[in-house]
Amino acid sequence: MRSLFHEELDFISDQLVRMSRMAAEALERATRSLLEADLELAEQVITDDEEIDAVRRDLENRAIDVLARQQPVATDLRQLVTALRMCADLERSGDLARHVAKLARMRYPLVAVPDDLRPIVKEMSVLAEEMIVRAGEVVAAHDPSGAAELQSRDDGMDRLHREVFRLLLDHDTERGRQEVVDMTLLGRYYERYADHAVSVAIRVVFLVTGSWHDEQVPLSDAGRVHRAEP
Amino acid sequence: MRSLFHEELDFISDQLVRMSRMAAEALERATRSLLEADLELAEQVITDDEEIDAVRRDLENRAIDVLARQQPVATDLRQLVTALRMCADLERSGDLARHVAKLARMRYPLVAVPDDLRPIVKEMSVLAEEMIVRAGEVVAAHDPSGAAELQSRDDGMDRLHREVFRLLLDHDTERGRQEVVDMTLLGRYYERYADHAVSVAIRVVFLVTGSWHDEQVPLSDAGRVHRAEP
Repeated sequence: MRSLFHEELDFISDQLVRMSRMAAEALERATRSLLEADLELAEQVITDDEEIDAVRRDLENRAIDVLARQQPVATDLRQLVTALRMCADLERSGDLARHVAKLARMRYPLVAVPDDLRPIVKEMSVLAEEMIVRAGEVVAAHDPSGAAELQSRDDGMDRLHREVFRLLLDHDTERGRQEVVDMTLLGRYYERYADHAVSVAIRVVFLVTGSWHDEQVPLSDAGRVHRAEP
Repeated sequence: MRSLFHEELDFISDQLVRMSRMAAEALERATRSLLEADLELAEQVITDDEEIDAVRRDLENRAIDVLARQQPVATDLRQLVTALRMCADLERSGDLARHVAKLARMRYPLVAVPDDLRPIVKEMSVLAEEMIVRAGEVVAAHDPSGAAELQSRDDGMDRLHREVFRLLLDHDTERGRQEVVDMTLLGRYYERYADHAVSVAIRVVFLVTGSWHDEQVPLSDAGRVHRAEP
């Protein structure tokens, strides 16, 4: 029989998985609002971000409440502190989806993304959504091998990010400056979103290995950013 | 006489102040390396970021160790959890300074910042450095009024950020596309750095008021980003 404490940990883990799905849905809708200049959808994504924030608040309150009441040590303590960190990553992913939606809203009725960049924006979004869902699965399964998988997918994100810069700077194509500014920001949003997915998965490694720090896990590189240099 | 527990809390608070100063120094040097195309200085900033990361690791280890050994509740527990969050913000500020230095390194021997944007980049950097140092002071003094002050300074940062976009999009000035990409990223780095300073100061409000969540503190807006819309 599971103790009350472990039931509470299970609940917290379920909420992390839920947040990862909410963040994936937010990005899918944000990208759709961006590519279709769908103002209503963009507004919805912006408003719905409050729901992710609310799940985070509830999760944090519970985790801290459990910390105070049960005074866990060792692995149990590590689980709770790790959950607090993961929910910060997942909430931030939701924020980045909201930024995409805000950019869509700002350019409406225009489409912020030039035609030749539509496929790559779509591709970045789908990859980022898959990564955050996978990060949620890795959390649920306590699967440390997921971190390496997520990092390998993140290399794919970095390649796409570099390709965005290449396309933006290609002088055979006419570009407006606003277009260059917007695409630079969008590229960064998708890349950072993916970084948070990697970060969540890496935290599972600490949980299982007992190390607290991504910096000490050789396969970790989630802290590294700006890899797809402009 | 202070208890051992409170001495440990004081030490953790001192380390947070130390991190804020390290992050300020990193940004000052990164901006100098950027504006002067100083490759050696840029390399130093990039390397020295590991020191900030090391202070964070040490601080986290201590905080978690205290959590496990002393099993604090109420205000004491809140202090430790808040310290963990603050050190994540401060470490991220250091990362953003490193991004500025990496951009300087990437463009060397060229200067990434066009002449007419030098004054505003310098101004953003000085403001951001002042904000993070002030955030450290707010932590040391447990001064909840500091959050409002930091937010007001952050409004200044947003104005500067908007001005960067205005200058970038001003069609009376010739701009290369690489310049537009670089300045868009740089503007975002300084703005995000300042957001982390605000976030640190707001966490002091939770400490003092007993609320856990920036979202519930009316004066808080640190989670809001992309205010200086492109």
